[in-house]
Amino acid sequence: MDTVLKLSKFAASNDYELRVVGVPKTVDNDLAATDHTPGFGSAAKFVATTMKELRRDVGVYTVKAVTIVEVMGRDAGWLTASAALPSLSGDRAPDLIYLPERVFDPERFLSDITKLHESYPDLLVAVSEGIKLANGEYVGAASSAATVDAFGHKPLSGTGKVLEELVKARLGCKVRSIELNLPQRCASHIASLTDITESVSVGKGAVEAAVKGESGVMMCFVREDSGDGYSVRIESRDISKIANAVRTVPDEYINEESNGITDKGLEYLAPLISGEVYPVFEFGMPKHIII
Amino acid sequence: MDTVLKLSKFAASNDYELRVVGVPKTVDNDLAATDHTPGFGSAAKFVATTMKELRRDVGVYTVKAVTIVEVMGRDAGWLTASAALPSLSGDRAPDLIYLPERVFDPERFLSDITKLHESYPDLLVAVSEGIKLANGEYVGAASSAATVDAFGHKPLSGTGKVLEELVKARLGCKVRSIELNLPQRCASHIASLTDITESVSVGKGAVEAAVKGESGVMMCFVREDSGDGYSVRIESRDISKIANAVRTVPDEYINEESNGITDKGLEYLAPLISGEVYPVFEFGMPKHIII
Repeated sequence: MDTVLKLSKFAASNDYELRVVGVPKTVDNDLAATDHTPGFGSAAKFVATTMKELRRDVGVYTVKAVTIVEVMGRDAGWLTASAALPSLSGDRAPDLIYLPERVFDPERFLSDITKLHESYPDLLVAVSEGIKLANGEYVGAASSAATVDAFGHKPLSGTGKVLEELVKARLGCKVRSIELNLPQRCASHIASLTDITESVSVGKGAVEAAVKGESGVMMCFVREDSGDGYSVRIESRDISKIANAVRTVPDEYINEESNGITDKGLEYLAPLISGEVYPVFEFGMPKHIII
Repeated sequence: MDTVLKLSKFAASNDYELRVVGVPKTVDNDLAATDHTPGFGSAAKFVATTMKELRRDVGVYTVKAVTIVEVMGRDAGWLTASAALPSLSGDRAPDLIYLPERVFDPERFLSDITKLHESYPDLLVAVSEGIKLANGEYVGAASSAATVDAFGHKPLSGTGKVLEELVKARLGCKVRSIELNLPQRCASHIASLTDITESVSVGKGAVEAAVKGESGVMMCFVREDSGDGYSVRIESRDISKIANAVRTVPDEYINEESNGITDKGLEYLAPLISGEVYPVFEFGMPKHIII
């Protein structure tokens, strides 16, 4: 979007007839001015589905255990927040959720686990890769203090791995960390119909805006307060207010304890993962169209 | 299956009227006497689908890079071998595959990558968690030589992570490792219809065998050489030959260079991931039946 800003400014100041319209897309959902971004709904659907499946997997054991799932999101916790969606179907999944919007307190994290272990053995925790300590350091960077590995190099540890080591060291219970990694942004086999439909609409909207003569704008989703369910309209907004801003998860979507998502947050997320796009399968795998 | 053996022996030697029939299930596909095991086809379908999606993701970059995907399989490489299935649809995915059935040579691995980088920038590699060095040590255990991390404890590194560090140290190119972790065994949203259908049949077969008076057996799939496509029949086999044996990937399924799967291997795998089971969705996520 910064490039849209620069290009449109350059074209305007050089009387060059070029219209530049930004079409948003990011699984991170952190662009300003738009209600959400294309790609996010499908990634959120994968994260929510995976959390629900992990709940089934970890639930078969009876020894005290913690499974920590690291979700993408360096600056904003949108995708990690979507891990809370299984609660819509009555699932206890996950038990704890930590977003980068709130300072991460390791002692609080450990006491959250200890408290929940009194009620359940099989805890499931979702954390954003970008959670930070009170001193501003990334939790995932803590392992950079570690010394060299067998090949003579510093091991790279992710946020989940660091927390896994912390739980093992301090609580001594069974613990595993899972990094959802690239699949969360490319698992097209479980895309959201809402997301795919809106992605086409926003592209069309961008072409229409350019044809009408607009430039230096980004196409945005505006959620409509229709009362009878979810709907969006597409509008162009001035790119200068969007280009380098990050839209984080608002306070009202995060619970007071900073370890979960509120009903208001679930209300925002739910329609974005709605509907299915069944891929065409060949040889037992989804068929991809390769250009 | 060892428990089936012990229980059936105990019942027989104590004239206790109990019939014990083993119903196989493991995503590892490593039980002896059966052509394959329930659960494997669905896990293989997830692995194959994910490899295909990762190929699309890593293919958008033009700088030399290696993406290493660690797949479950401590003793047998069946699930990792299924990563080769995208080649059925003409995909270059993955470029290299290493199974625990062959000794893993780090120098050979590095030269495989260097050679392939002459043709493609975006290499995708699948490795079994259980690959071992010539001295019998697990590659994934190499990092146990590492010293303590920021929290004062030894970091746990998986096989993929160790190879990531090796590539970074020796080749200096962009490298990422992905551990498929628990989702590969619980991603029921993309189950194989063949697997689900056969799983029901093998359970029925076990009940029928018990009713007929059999005990101390495991139900097995026997692949039929019908000429016109894949079919299996279900038979019971003496548990004593199965109980503690591991069925590994045969030599003829692994290429001469020990870094890929042969056409014969693909022929074995392909029918097992065939067909789809579309879950019922509610709230945008697959509905689970919880008892």
